[in-house]
Amino acid sequence: MTVAVLNSYSGADALSIEQRPIPTPGRNEVLVKVAYSPINPSDLATLKGKYGFNDPTPIVPGGEGSGEVVAAGPGGMARYFLGKNVASAGWGIGGGVWSEYVVKNVKGGVLPLNKSLSLEQGAMSIINPLTACAFIDISKKGGHKAILLTAAASSLGQKVNRLGRKEGIRIVNVVRRDAQVDLLKAHGADIVLNSNDEGFDQQLHDACHHTNTRIAFDAVAGQLTNQLLKAMPANSKVTVFSALSHQAVQANPGILIFENKMVDSFWLGPWMSQQNFVKIMLLWKRAQKQIPNHLKSEIRKIYPIQEVKEAIRDYTSQMTGGKILLSMS
Amino acid sequence: MTVAVLNSYSGADALSIEQRPIPTPGRNEVLVKVAYSPINPSDLATLKGKYGFNDPTPIVPGGEGSGEVVAAGPGGMARYFLGKNVASAGWGIGGGVWSEYVVKNVKGGVLPLNKSLSLEQGAMSIINPLTACAFIDISKKGGHKAILLTAAASSLGQKVNRLGRKEGIRIVNVVRRDAQVDLLKAHGADIVLNSNDEGFDQQLHDACHHTNTRIAFDAVAGQLTNQLLKAMPANSKVTVFSALSHQAVQANPGILIFENKMVDSFWLGPWMSQQNFVKIMLLWKRAQKQIPNHLKSEIRKIYPIQEVKEAIRDYTSQMTGGKILLSMS
Repeated sequence: MTVAVLNSYSGADALSIEQRPIPTPGRNEVLVKVAYSPINPSDLATLKGKYGFNDPTPIVPGGEGSGEVVAAGPGGMARYFLGKNVASAGWGIGGGVWSEYVVKNVKGGVLPLNKSLSLEQGAMSIINPLTACAFIDISKKGGHKAILLTAAASSLGQKVNRLGRKEGIRIVNVVRRDAQVDLLKAHGADIVLNSNDEGFDQQLHDACHHTNTRIAFDAVAGQLTNQLLKAMPANSKVTVFSALSHQAVQANPGILIFENKMVDSFWLGPWMSQQNFVKIMLLWKRAQKQIPNHLKSEIRKIYPIQEVKEAIRDYTSQMTGGKILLSMS
Repeated sequence: MTVAVLNSYSGADALSIEQRPIPTPGRNEVLVKVAYSPINPSDLATLKGKYGFNDPTPIVPGGEGSGEVVAAGPGGMARYFLGKNVASAGWGIGGGVWSEYVVKNVKGGVLPLNKSLSLEQGAMSIINPLTACAFIDISKKGGHKAILLTAAASSLGQKVNRLGRKEGIRIVNVVRRDAQVDLLKAHGADIVLNSNDEGFDQQLHDACHHTNTRIAFDAVAGQLTNQLLKAMPANSKVTVFSALSHQAVQANPGILIFENKMVDSFWLGPWMSQQNFVKIMLLWKRAQKQIPNHLKSEIRKIYPIQEVKEAIRDYTSQMTGGKILLSMS
């Protein structure tokens, strides 16, 4: 089978295409014939060794994908999946999915895809849709009626906006370019601020106080995290989930101490494993239902896995213009 | 009566000594004839407008003190305190205690002092002793058996060490000078690290992993906060309660996200007001009992309030060599 292999944590140039034997599923495991996998920001971080704990190279990257279960190991749950279309996460047993076939455990490694869903959309149904659902879930649980969101024009950001609108949660959007302001407003967002505007700090303060926004999901980090902390009312928190600025989180200690603010973090895999199985299944069913609408991803181009390096170059050149998919067969 | 007045938030030079009429206690209020008040780091921050939200100047500073209740307003609780020695916090009604007399509400404004306690020791029985008790309380509630502590040679740090030893909580101490290492070790601390040592990061990592230390109380902020986050095992947090470095908290986003770590904060006043009354009274009784032993403060010198500026100069020149008290009469 054809596999994309990362030979060192030095970026896309360290990728090569190899041939390997098709693996055999063990107990409670299934063999997935992978159809499509998107390139996500977390994949780019993985290639540079900046995503979680790094196994020794060579590794197979690929954080999520879709496919058909073509073989099942012993165990009733595994046989249940035989012949079904599934989404697969790149974490846990079997590793990344930039591979023609991958073995996955049935507990958490594969999720059943709705029959009405294409394998293209199904390939992008874990990371962004469940992250968007998680943000809304965390916010509702905390009694929040509004969310502050950075890098808000991203594929994830647009999903959070659509889902928030559906669920009655207002989004205070922060982007870095006027074109992104226009894009989000064209899609119906009512509060969109450009962090490069001169009056940004005051605008953000006013927006957060007007909407009583006390939770921020921050994909940028660096100095922006401190600006978010400063802008929100007392008793707020920033949840960091990425670091597009490539800089350390900054936080004024006086703001933390005297305004009772905090900084925590979100990572989808551990968050999911902390929820109970029934909740994840409900979340998954709801997300699957929304993928044709609120949680849809635009697809810009599909590359065969053999052209993975070119696909990554294309993606990094324009990260908000629709997703790039890799086709495995 | 004699009062120390801060005329602008520009430090000790903006202090003046004034004469004002003695105030009259209202309903549920008492009039305290103040005896002694220490100079705490939080007082220095107050003088510079860096401690919490600032009322318009002129204000009366002084975060805590001891005294005798010499008059009571209407209300049974107020009369209960008449003639008793009390400790008074500088927050809430009546403001700071660098004043010959101060009016305080009986709910939270005054705490009864043990009869066996001197007014000198009683003057220092709120901020540091209750903070030390709170740190131990928070840690025990979180199931922690060990605490990471910065600025550990301070008056507060020494109290946390003694109380921790009594309560079976290990302290991983971080200081900035070898003399402070020697001081804490002479007082029985077993783990004391100098953050200026070359091998500090590795030593701290080993100490935190060996003791499974997953909570840090940080008085320094800046880059040190990130070093603490990095050194502790996954699922840890740093609680910032001061910023001796005068720098922004730094936190590597990868460490936050992939190791599930967080930064929150502690401020004594709000923490106390979140606890229920019975708990505070139990905490207070326990702290009072320990003040002659584990929670004792060394006194270096006592200045009359008229010499407040000189007292502050003396204190800032040597902050770990015993407390400086102001005498009000």
